[in-house]
Amino acid sequence: MSKVNIAEKFSKIPERWKPHIVGELNGQHVKLVKSWGEFVFHHHENEDEMFLVVKGRFRMDFRDRHEWIETGEFIVVPRGVEHRPVAEEECWIVLFEPASTLNTGNVENELTQHELGRV
Amino acid sequence: MSKVNIAEKFSKIPERWKPHIVGELNGQHVKLVKSWGEFVFHHHENEDEMFLVVKGRFRMDFRDRHEWIETGEFIVVPRGVEHRPVAEEECWIVLFEPASTLNTGNVENELTQHELGRV
Repeated sequence: MSKVNIAEKFSKIPERWKPHIVGELNGQHVKLVKSWGEFVFHHHENEDEMFLVVKGRFRMDFRDRHEWIETGEFIVVPRGVEHRPVAEEECWIVLFEPASTLNTGNVENELTQHELGRV
Repeated sequence: MSKVNIAEKFSKIPERWKPHIVGELNGQHVKLVKSWGEFVFHHHENEDEMFLVVKGRFRMDFRDRHEWIETGEFIVVPRGVEHRPVAEEECWIVLFEPASTLNTGNVENELTQHELGRV
């Protein structure tokens, strides 16, 4: 039970779009992900997802609209809702979601990460 | 499903030590609490708690040690572990915890908040 410095943990993450686990509580994971570029449209059958921006900003695309999430802001995407994060520059995102969550949800492609590491 | 600006929400909270709900996912609540002064030692029987500092800092006291949590840092306190937040100046904390969580856990006193509002 030690505190976690979020920026320090991000500095240890080289990859983009690969979440790293930094905390666990009540069956949920706290993950950090560096995003840059366009992710893939997907949804999660059974998991709501929270995206909290701590550096930069990204655009969350939905099928019928989009929303920019800036530093100090978060959005909760309910299960079943298709979404696609897009970042024009590097963006640091804290994810809060059930431990069972697969990053690409119902989609399997080169972005899919079945094995997550810890930093 | 709209984004939440954390600082904007904090600006609407007048009280100290009273959590306000700003998000809900997977049976968990995202709450904001302004802390200043000394809380009460307590524990939660069934809930792990995450404290993320977005402004200022606070000291988390345990029975045998303490830890300062600064802006951009978080700590997870597992269920059953006695803890007491103390803030020498106003500190803004984001809480992630099960919706069932009572702020003072096993303790009932003037700080206890049975009814939480939303901002």
